[in-house]
Amino acid sequence: MASAITHEASCIFCKIIKGEIPSFKLIETKHSYSFLDIQPTAKGHLLVIPKYHGAKLHNLPDEYLADILPVAKKLAIALDLNIDSPEGDGYNILQNNGRIAHQVVDHVHFHLIPKRDEKTGLIVGWPAEDADMAKLSEFAKELQAKL
Amino acid sequence: MASAITHEASCIFCKIIKGEIPSFKLIETKHSYSFLDIQPTAKGHLLVIPKYHGAKLHNLPDEYLADILPVAKKLAIALDLNIDSPEGDGYNILQNNGRIAHQVVDHVHFHLIPKRDEKTGLIVGWPAEDADMAKLSEFAKELQAKL
Repeated sequence: MASAITHEASCIFCKIIKGEIPSFKLIETKHSYSFLDIQPTAKGHLLVIPKYHGAKLHNLPDEYLADILPVAKKLAIALDLNIDSPEGDGYNILQNNGRIAHQVVDHVHFHLIPKRDEKTGLIVGWPAEDADMAKLSEFAKELQAKL
Repeated sequence: MASAITHEASCIFCKIIKGEIPSFKLIETKHSYSFLDIQPTAKGHLLVIPKYHGAKLHNLPDEYLADILPVAKKLAIALDLNIDSPEGDGYNILQNNGRIAHQVVDHVHFHLIPKRDEKTGLIVGWPAEDADMAKLSEFAKELQAKL
């Protein structure tokens, strides 16, 4: 039986998975591959990617999605951040879909980004507003009908 | 056999899971619960949380981690964003660990945030630098030794 087609010839991340482009590889599993980002926003900024070529999260089969976060967990622990104190370090997990959402490479990738100070790592802007509860309730019903 | 202790009495998200605080519930599975964020940064901003009380990603058992992204995928599709065009909408998946990394509620939660324009949704600041390859290689070895 033929394997599923999981790679795309022109994709830089597929090339990294296949070893055609070198990378600072960390964990590799049946479904996932992880490596250091070479344009890091902070020391230890790394990527976890599925070994399946899908541009966006919703394009991935569930077995690839299911493997990503357990891998990220192992890496978060290995980073040895000072994460057990409330005043200590933190980290963000970020995955971007679409140009407008800051996606640059069209192969799903999860950033694991250490946050040790205000100037490095992910800078989060958060234009939150208190919602109109009636509108929110209406929208929830719309969405529930599609699930 | 007693169940694992998965809830904490004072946790607002544990109360939502148990139905003690109302929420605009979307998908619920054995391991996950999802609902609309009531202080959204964009229409459709929602949360996927594990039905297990852990403050940070690395505190969660793998079976809870594995369930999160397949749920997020179903929700991303149901949001009916204009996501198949390069010029269309996008979305971000974000999970914050620690106060410095913008975590407010100490129960792991994944944000799924539609991105339709520059002013709403997640605003990403990205202080990336080209890395010193020799230092990166050294750091990769350090990290690999801990994996």
